Order: sequence, then C-alpha cells, then structure tokens
Amino acid sequence: MRDEFRIDLNIVSQLLVDMAEAIQVAMRQATKALLTADRRAAEGVIARDAEIDSIFRQVEERVCDLLARQAPVASDLRALITALHVAADLERMGDLADHVAKTAVRRHPSPAVPAELRGVFTEMSGVADRIANKIGKVLSKPDATLAAELEQDDDAMDELHRQLFGILLDDEWPYGVETAIDATLLGRFYERYADHAVNAGRRVVYLVTGETV
Amino acid sequence: MRDEFRIDLNIVSQLLVDMAEAIQVAMRQATKALLTADRRAAEGVIARDAEIDSIFRQVEERVCDLLARQAPVASDLRALITALHVAADLERMGDLADHVAKTAVRRHPSPAVPAELRGVFTEMSGVADRIANKIGKVLSKPDATLAAELEQDDDAMDELHRQLFGILLDDEWPYGVETAIDATLLGRFYERYADHAVNAGRRVVYLVTGETV
Repeated sequence: MRDEFRIDLNIVSQLLVDMAEAIQVAMRQATKALLTADRRAAEGVIARDAEIDSIFRQVEERVCDLLARQAPVASDLRALITALHVAADLERMGDLADHVAKTAVRRHPSPAVPAELRGVFTEMSGVADRIANKIGKVLSKPDATLAAELEQDDDAMDELHRQLFGILLDDEWPYGVETAIDATLLGRFYERYADHAVNAGRRVVYLVTGETV
Repeated sequence: MRDEFRIDLNIVSQLLVDMAEAIQVAMRQATKALLTADRRAAEGVIARDAEIDSIFRQVEERVCDLLARQAPVASDLRALITALHVAADLERMGDLADHVAKTAVRRHPSPAVPAELRGVFTEMSGVADRIANKIGKVLSKPDATLAAELEQDDDAMDELHRQLFGILLDDEWPYGVETAIDATLLGRFYERYADHAVNAGRRVVYLVTGETV
C-alpha cells in the first residue's frame, strides 16, 4: 500500500514537472510570437494550451483517485492537496501564455509591441523564463532555497512592470491609446504569470518545511 | 460517522456562502468607492480582504481535516474537492474587489473613472453584483438552472468589456493614456471576477449533476 502510494505520488509529481516544462515553452514561444510577429509560433502556443489543460485534468483525476483508494493522512495528504493547488497555478500560467500569443495573433502582421517597449518585454519574458525554469526544478526536487529565490524574481518582475508604466505614461509616448491598452494587458499577463509561480513555490516550500515563506 | 461528516460538510458549505456574501459586499463597496471617490468605502474593502482570506484558510483546514479523519469516497470526496476549488475562486474574487478599491484610493480625491465611463462601469458592477448573488444562492442550495444563468451573465460582462474598449479607442477619447490604463485594468478586474464566478458555478453544477455545463 505504502509503496503503491509512493509510485502514484511520483506519477503526479512527474505530471507537474511536465506541466512546468510546457508552460515554460509556452511563454517562451508566446514572447517570440509577440516580439517578432511570428504567427506560426503564436498558433502553436494556442494549440498546445489544450495539452496543458489535459495534464491538469490528469493531475486532478489521479489525486482524487489516490485520495479515494488510499485515504492518506498527514504529510501524504498534504502532498496531494499541494499538487492540486500547484497544478491550478501552472494551468493558469499556461492560460496567460495563451493570452500573450493571442495578442500577437490579433495584431499580426503588425508587431503588437512597438520598439520602445521591446526592451522591457524582453526583460519581463527573461524573468518569466527563469521563474518557470525554477518552478520546474523545485517540483523535480523540492528545494526551499530555490523556491525562496522565486520571491526575488517576482520583485524583479514587479519592478519591470513599474518601468513599463513609466514608459507608457511618459509625455513623449507616441503610440496612442490602443498600443497602451495592449501593453497594459500584456504587462499584466507577465506579472500574473510570475505571481502564480510564486504561489506554487510557496506551496512547495510549505509542504517540505512546514513553514510559510 | 456519516452524520458527523454531514455536519462538518454543512459547516464548510456555510463558510463558502459566507465568502460569497463577503465578496459581493466587497465588489459593491469597491464600485461605490470607484464611482464616487469614496475613500472610506475603499479602505473598508481593503481592510476586509483579510477576513475573506481568513475564511478561505478555514475552508482549506476543515477540508483537509475532514479528508484525514473521515477518508470520504465518491460523492463525499467530490464535494470536498469542489469546496477547495470554489473557495479558491471566491478568494480571488475578493482580491479583484480589493484591486478595484486600491485603484480608487490611488486616484483619490480625483475619481478614477471619468464621466464617459461611468455608465459602462455601473453596468459592469451591476452584472458583478448579480453574479455574486447567484453564486451565493447556488452554494446555499445547488441549482443547475441558476448556475447555468451565470454563463449568460458572463456573456453580458464580456459584451460590456467590449463596449469599454470601444469607448477607449474612440477617436474622441479625451483623457489620454493614464486614464485608459486605469480603465483597462479595471475592466479586466470586473471581467475576471465574472470568470471566477462562472468557474465556481460550473464546479457546483458538475458536483450536483455529474455533467459539465
């Protein structure tokens, strides 16, 4: 029974690692689509969001199945509840990558992001990529130090988000309201992507150490 | 054991109903703060968000406790997992009301929403209020018909969201980028509030009927 539980729990963990990889690739490709008006890349992200949703449902089903069959308690129960929450955060990160890709498609063949904003979006996507990579590592091998780094990455994202508004609100902003609206929503998508990663990281730290970050 | 489970499950359900009431009041007051530059109302919403978060944690703790003590299966297990998901959606709806209130505070004593946008935000908040009310009713007494209405309410919200962009993108929009950024984010907060209500409603319908909406 115990061994069987371990094996099943490992399958759930592996599904979460798969999700983390998928949402990392999704945001990387969505950013590529956004910054280079690459419609094919964008459509790939949108198509593969269904795969991320499918892994999410597999996690839910396996967790419910394990709860019903094995009636775990204490740390085993906590691990399963954590898996549910983390899967929900990762699924949402996939949605946010999908939103970035859809913005690129909507503006195609024009680039959705003008030259003045490329720098800040390139940096935001760099932080997003680092965050997604770390959450994958933390899920493969729980590591409270690495998970704590996610908080700093999130601070870096918030700082970039402020920079973005600084550029949009500059008196010399030449692009008018439509581009500002797109940029506002895009900024929000990257920022929320980071927030969900931090949430997921906190859950894993709590699971491993019993302490809140 | 069975009776004890029913009693505990009822407590969880009541906590969810309490959350639904709290997030309805929160968005109502946040909108009041937004449209009338009422700083006191805004600060009340921000202060009470911690109470919503606290009920959320109570739901989580009670569900985990019930899973550990009673090892429910089948529909009882499904009810508890649904409660976790619904609580997460409601908690997020509270955050979104908090974001609206914070926007009102940031612009105080100026109104965050100019005259041209009052109509659409009044309508969006009306739909949000109807949605929050319905989700409270559905949680008190599961009702698939009422839950299905949430989908239509969400369509109405999406239509208002499109109207909002129509006003912002009109050539005669007189307020410049800063007000457009605020309005874009506010629109997104109301729209996400509705999305979470629909998610929660779908979970409840699935729980009651075994069918997805």
